[in-house]
Amino acid sequence: MSRLKIAEEVTKLLELKAQLGEKNGEAPSKLLLKTPKGTRDYGPEQMALRLTVLDKIVAVFKKHGAETIDTPIFERKEVLTGKYGEDSKLIYDLKDQGGEILSLRYDLTVPFARYLAMGKISSIKRYHIAKVYRRDNPSTTRGRYREFYQCDFDIAGQYDPMIPDAECIRIISEALQSLDVGPYTIRLNHRLLLDGIFAACGVPSNKFRAVCSAIDKLDKNSWSEVKKEIIEEKGLDESSTDKIGIYVSRFGGIELISELREDSELMKYESATKGLESMELLYKYCNLLQVTDKVIFDLSLARGLDYYTGVIFEAILTGDDVGVGSVAGGGRYDNLVGMFDSKHKSIPCVGLSLGVERIFNVLETKLNKEGVKTRTTEVEVFVATAQKNLHEERMKLLSILWDAGVKAEQSYKRNVKLLAQLQYCEESGIPLVIIIGEGELARGELTLRDVMSRTEISIPRAHLIEEIRKRL
Amino acid sequence: MSRLKIAEEVTKLLELKAQLGEKNGEAPSKLLLKTPKGTRDYGPEQMALRLTVLDKIVAVFKKHGAETIDTPIFERKEVLTGKYGEDSKLIYDLKDQGGEILSLRYDLTVPFARYLAMGKISSIKRYHIAKVYRRDNPSTTRGRYREFYQCDFDIAGQYDPMIPDAECIRIISEALQSLDVGPYTIRLNHRLLLDGIFAACGVPSNKFRAVCSAIDKLDKNSWSEVKKEIIEEKGLDESSTDKIGIYVSRFGGIELISELREDSELMKYESATKGLESMELLYKYCNLLQVTDKVIFDLSLARGLDYYTGVIFEAILTGDDVGVGSVAGGGRYDNLVGMFDSKHKSIPCVGLSLGVERIFNVLETKLNKEGVKTRTTEVEVFVATAQKNLHEERMKLLSILWDAGVKAEQSYKRNVKLLAQLQYCEESGIPLVIIIGEGELARGELTLRDVMSRTEISIPRAHLIEEIRKRL
Repeated sequence: MSRLKIAEEVTKLLELKAQLGEKNGEAPSKLLLKTPKGTRDYGPEQMALRLTVLDKIVAVFKKHGAETIDTPIFERKEVLTGKYGEDSKLIYDLKDQGGEILSLRYDLTVPFARYLAMGKISSIKRYHIAKVYRRDNPSTTRGRYREFYQCDFDIAGQYDPMIPDAECIRIISEALQSLDVGPYTIRLNHRLLLDGIFAACGVPSNKFRAVCSAIDKLDKNSWSEVKKEIIEEKGLDESSTDKIGIYVSRFGGIELISELREDSELMKYESATKGLESMELLYKYCNLLQVTDKVIFDLSLARGLDYYTGVIFEAILTGDDVGVGSVAGGGRYDNLVGMFDSKHKSIPCVGLSLGVERIFNVLETKLNKEGVKTRTTEVEVFVATAQKNLHEERMKLLSILWDAGVKAEQSYKRNVKLLAQLQYCEESGIPLVIIIGEGELARGELTLRDVMSRTEISIPRAHLIEEIRKRL
Repeated sequence: MSRLKIAEEVTKLLELKAQLGEKNGEAPSKLLLKTPKGTRDYGPEQMALRLTVLDKIVAVFKKHGAETIDTPIFERKEVLTGKYGEDSKLIYDLKDQGGEILSLRYDLTVPFARYLAMGKISSIKRYHIAKVYRRDNPSTTRGRYREFYQCDFDIAGQYDPMIPDAECIRIISEALQSLDVGPYTIRLNHRLLLDGIFAACGVPSNKFRAVCSAIDKLDKNSWSEVKKEIIEEKGLDESSTDKIGIYVSRFGGIELISELREDSELMKYESATKGLESMELLYKYCNLLQVTDKVIFDLSLARGLDYYTGVIFEAILTGDDVGVGSVAGGGRYDNLVGMFDSKHKSIPCVGLSLGVERIFNVLETKLNKEGVKTRTTEVEVFVATAQKNLHEERMKLLSILWDAGVKAEQSYKRNVKLLAQLQYCEESGIPLVIIIGEGELARGELTLRDVMSRTEISIPRAHLIEEIRKRL
């Protein structure tokens, strides 16, 4: 162990020496101007789209009565430890600069559970929209990044079976509908049903989660790849694995539940019968909430994270030209809060997370295809001057406009050609221009120009605000 | 060197062993349930206030025609290096997990400059509201944290003197006005004028920034403390320091500029005359933008950061009961973008940052004092049941309400006492309740209750949405 450490340190020193050599020997090293790997800046056009999307999502969350909270971007490392299974290796750690050992949050769910336990909060319905961090090797061309937004909605509290769970399904459906991302399906499964299936296939219970995490890759990998992983990495025998393979190929509507009920081998396991019972109730509630046409039972849905304990779900876009996989997911996690409580007292929770980065991508592609240009400002009036040295008059007028709450701007140059000012307005979609010229000043008037129609009228200065309001 | 490394590793291993010993010897170590030092969670009430504040600020930024951008929460460390002077020690570094060396952003200005240089953007007016990180030893009781929001507005581009600068002053004034934080003053100074003063006092030019950073502490420390720092830490002689002390005690209106013009020793320095000229022009523009009653020239204003090159400003609250110091600041930084360009081509910039954390504190205290309760959700209608086993009827109705865009919720329990449901509505400020009972169901009716007045009327189911809309 110590020898390995020494070898590591030697490698680091050699790298440092090499860097030093570069600095001394060659030209002064240029600053590499880039954002960190797997991250990006968002320019005004991208931000305008993102804010529109987030506003629509927040509107849906608020329609369902959610409050919002915020937690720090980093947590004490021990808070995150043991919550993510194999994915823990993707957590970003902060450098130990004397003090606490910290990590960037990996999702919003674990900080939420920590928040509940710390505040001894027994029930809450909250949304949280914020960035999370994963040291993945993401394919940025497919819209996956190391820093990305999550939009979470969760219901915590001791309630009756499947009532909050069904509302989560309805929320995913409402959100995807309001975002206009095209057709979608919400896949449903249940961790208890999966556990029953694994037991019936002869998987030892300490391998349930590991097998789950392999099956979760079925959306990207073929069954034969997943089978290989289950046998070689998780150490299951081939016959059990083949049995699993048959189960996870099944999907369908409510009839799938009756079919599984006839599987006498499976029905020996209490977790399977309990899982089926839950799914049936969920289906009934989905029907009352008018979303049964959007849902499908899918036994191959496993979800990678360790902490789920009940229903799990995932929404996928099914349109022709969107190969982006899952756009929402979630499930029930009844034991996570208990992991933070000294007496292991837990708070049952169910929640959903919208994959907004993928949604942004889909919508961006759509807008580009349609050639739609998004406005990046909300400026209503541009204050222009027709001759030189009138910039002070522009400022006087702007002051009046801003006082009246009108969104207005000018050029920050003292003298600009009128044509250039008007062109700027046409390009940026500003609807109105006030033109100040020497003639106008002498007559106590202003010229008001409609940018789209290019028509101009003269108005008395005193009627300025009134005339603008009329046109907005 | 290699031996030193081995010694270090051995020490680390011993520490680990000691920790392990503790764990085995004593009771199993409990998880310390807290947020990292200097950070905090924001609950629903705090978030409701924060979002109201941020919305008002964004409205002001948009009124001035700003776009918005976003950058990653961390940067390559070299991007931050050499930008913050003495404060660089407060930067949070990420652990080297193989790959790039990264640090959490310290402010939004340096990432903005990196963004401009990287994208070769020559002009933009943008706002950016996001969290920044400083490993300070903050007094959390005074509203200072290690993780906090900054609200920045900046104008980048080659423009005419003081036109964008004056707008920044106007924006600070509009924002503070709209937030209703009480009386405030915006202190103004100019780095060139300060440089002239330092030169006239005999400070060598390589110590200008270090002296600036000491003077910046005058809002917290007395002159005798600052004097001690200048002499002992910055190595200036006492006579020069005393001269500085006289200058930095001066403040006032436009008359201060004429007084300084009569200072023949100071007027020998071009930077002083240039600084005064700029301040005079700024004052003229502030007058046109109607903010001269809010500004004061103050030679003790220095601003700690290295990158300012022109006008600097800072807003302070002057009300009786608010001892919170600065609530906004900013200035011109014409050379920062050039630090990222291989040919040192720069983009002149000026910008402001609103200290929203302190503003939140002031407003929170005010609301608490007034006993105002902030609503944390926007629920319009609560769907209640009067008897047991009617929860499916609630779901049917909710589905109709949500489809119609009504913000509505129910209890997630199947059976709850009607009184408990009504009490919940009164406590959370929900204005309307729909009550479903067996009688109502039989008659095809619903009971609509106004929570405030506690009056109830019967309405036909078919008129549900119409009746609700009438009342909202």
